[in-house]
Amino acid sequence: MEKRTDVLIIGGGPAGIVCASTAKNYYPDKKITVLRSVQNSVVPCGIPYMFYSLKKPEDNKMGYAGLESAGIEVLVDEAVSINRKEKYVETKSGTKYYYEKLVLATGSLPIIPKITGIEKKNIFSIYKNLDYLKDVVEKVKESKNVLILGGGFIGVEIADEISKLEGINVYLVEMLPHLLAQSFDKEFSVLVEEKLRSKGVNVLTNAKVIEFIGDEKVRRVKLEDGREIDVDVVLLGIGARPNSELAKNTGLEVISTGAIWVDEYMRTSDPDIFAIGDCALKRDFYTRRNTAVMLASTATAEARIAGANLYKIKLIRENKGTIAVYSTYVDGLVLASAGLTESNAVREGFEIVTGTFEGIDKHPGTLPGVNKTKVKLIFSKHSGVLLGGQIAGGMSFAELINLIGVAIQQRMTASELETLQMATHPYLTCAPTVYHVVMAAQEAISKI
Amino acid sequence: MEKRTDVLIIGGGPAGIVCASTAKNYYPDKKITVLRSVQNSVVPCGIPYMFYSLKKPEDNKMGYAGLESAGIEVLVDEAVSINRKEKYVETKSGTKYYYEKLVLATGSLPIIPKITGIEKKNIFSIYKNLDYLKDVVEKVKESKNVLILGGGFIGVEIADEISKLEGINVYLVEMLPHLLAQSFDKEFSVLVEEKLRSKGVNVLTNAKVIEFIGDEKVRRVKLEDGREIDVDVVLLGIGARPNSELAKNTGLEVISTGAIWVDEYMRTSDPDIFAIGDCALKRDFYTRRNTAVMLASTATAEARIAGANLYKIKLIRENKGTIAVYSTYVDGLVLASAGLTESNAVREGFEIVTGTFEGIDKHPGTLPGVNKTKVKLIFSKHSGVLLGGQIAGGMSFAELINLIGVAIQQRMTASELETLQMATHPYLTCAPTVYHVVMAAQEAISKI
Repeated sequence: MEKRTDVLIIGGGPAGIVCASTAKNYYPDKKITVLRSVQNSVVPCGIPYMFYSLKKPEDNKMGYAGLESAGIEVLVDEAVSINRKEKYVETKSGTKYYYEKLVLATGSLPIIPKITGIEKKNIFSIYKNLDYLKDVVEKVKESKNVLILGGGFIGVEIADEISKLEGINVYLVEMLPHLLAQSFDKEFSVLVEEKLRSKGVNVLTNAKVIEFIGDEKVRRVKLEDGREIDVDVVLLGIGARPNSELAKNTGLEVISTGAIWVDEYMRTSDPDIFAIGDCALKRDFYTRRNTAVMLASTATAEARIAGANLYKIKLIRENKGTIAVYSTYVDGLVLASAGLTESNAVREGFEIVTGTFEGIDKHPGTLPGVNKTKVKLIFSKHSGVLLGGQIAGGMSFAELINLIGVAIQQRMTASELETLQMATHPYLTCAPTVYHVVMAAQEAISKI
Repeated sequence: MEKRTDVLIIGGGPAGIVCASTAKNYYPDKKITVLRSVQNSVVPCGIPYMFYSLKKPEDNKMGYAGLESAGIEVLVDEAVSINRKEKYVETKSGTKYYYEKLVLATGSLPIIPKITGIEKKNIFSIYKNLDYLKDVVEKVKESKNVLILGGGFIGVEIADEISKLEGINVYLVEMLPHLLAQSFDKEFSVLVEEKLRSKGVNVLTNAKVIEFIGDEKVRRVKLEDGREIDVDVVLLGIGARPNSELAKNTGLEVISTGAIWVDEYMRTSDPDIFAIGDCALKRDFYTRRNTAVMLASTATAEARIAGANLYKIKLIRENKGTIAVYSTYVDGLVLASAGLTESNAVREGFEIVTGTFEGIDKHPGTLPGVNKTKVKLIFSKHSGVLLGGQIAGGMSFAELINLIGVAIQQRMTASELETLQMATHPYLTCAPTVYHVVMAAQEAISKI
């Protein structure tokens, strides 16, 4: 069968969805088609909450009704090849989809570590597939011992959730000295480690798994230091790699990390093909080196740029390069990071100065529900430009990291932050006398 | 008695405190003295919470231990005159304080409306004095009927608090058609009106008090439309005027509104005298017209500029002019505003375009504790520059308004906001596919 569309988007994740709706907004007369490969897909960042917080896993199902009601065609089918010369995509069902503009939003695939016994049953990667994940959740709920491999965001959030289920021992195993080490300096990582330990999670850092032992199913995990841990289920959360086979096979430029090469406007080496989200190359905001940020929020920002600029560059990208802006939530504690950490900045060769402030998130501190807070800002020592920030606190800090993200994207300096005008409120924020971002900037300036 | 100091600061509110600590930070060798007139003063924005949320009114006492431990002298005494020629301030106790640099942080005084019967007992203005306010709180707690005059932030927050006390009828009376009309457009004001009404507060808008009736004490309030309301206590929250008598009497330039004239660095017409906070002139960020923003957060930003620049201009003020950034909290609902409202922008003559978005503050929306949200952004239609924003949502929105404030201060455009990189998290924010600030910017662009 042959079908014809104007804009064909391969991938039904956050990047694909946002690219489709943006394209419809900017080019209302174009026919837009989204091909998604999974019958029932999920909200990616909601996956940890399928274990406990959501009443049932189905509550995390990804919805497409919004796209459809906007007049966008959404089809379940899997692209198997791209013919760039004749401009069509062939699918598993045998259909040829002819396009004017093609967008690859094919996402990423979990990294499977090369560890002896990795093929055993009850060792699960995290795939964005509802039916698959329902089975994983069920298996976890029937377990006595669950081991999570990888102390990044997925590992931390899943450990927090599973610890809320009755009668399950949770092990969180990280090779590096600290959890969340890509996004936080040590003094923030320890906050999340303390929090998880206080909830009974066995946090094992500096720990390397060397073997999965068992019969057909995994029964024990062996660590490099000789320790063995009984397990019923193992969850893998050690990262992902770009899903770029389609692009590679059709001769598009793909870099050594597997990411599809794109220019500032998400155009691949073929001007009629765009790539966005986890499968696309990202350049670091500060150094322009290739970076491996894989976040839904980053993906949606790229999707908006691609969607607006499919036929003509309408939307100028003001913020060249990618910053990582993350937030996470562990049992009441909000931890968030934007831009470079101190250790990443030093590793990249920046001369830096940091400013920190610790306080509380209400004023006076006698108000009910007050949380301890911590803010750290990293500046270029000579030029004073903000390079990064890390924060720990209560619910309002979820958007405070986005304020810091805006300041980074605007290349604000410590002086500009010191003279910032802001709103404060007794119930909602710290006192105006000690607004943390201002105080941290001031402390940094006093060190220069 | 004669005393000698280097930097003399008159006023122990947020502006005075922050100016003193900033000055100590920038000029550690200078002797710094703060004169405050009230024995026990309070955290200004904490005043509403003395009625219910705080266990006892004393929990809102302003502390000075931080200043004292930094080596700053804090004295209770009242300045009565300034001798600019000989550079000293004379106080009620008869002491002469000689200064090198003088900072006026004398704050504001409540406006007392000219209404028949205003002098009767149990009609209270809000003074920042703990002993006075303890009496007010006690009187309110003994009441059956409390009427609050003025539907601004103080009125709204006090009404919310008193409504939580058992057995008190609360009346909130506002002359204008809507509450919080200085800071919000109608569609946001109605949210707070609905919320207060759902809590049993009698919200009377378009209502003007013309007489307080009673014997020695107030017993009834008469409205212009003839209605009469039984009351035991009346609280006045209709605004404040700069407290600038000292400045006027010593010949400093004071503008018609009563505010002390200052330049961009908070210097008065006498180069050795600075004025900061509610008593000092503010210029609007967009038009440079005089504006009457009186916020602790604004005051502290000015205090940092003055404190750093007392002897030399060290800290360049990057953000010229004042924007109002407010937030408030009514029974779980966070409402906040930054910059111009739509109606203020139109009144000032701006050609504008607005963008709005409504959603929820978690994703998927099946997570517990989800709140409805609303974001409105106001842009200059031709230049695309952000002029203002209003938001309604849950706790994380307290800092979202500060993100919008940063964007205003950086003169960001709708395009820049549309391509923003941000962090989102299921438990903490809306979905990345619909990040509200981005969506509102996109909607505004589609209207241009």
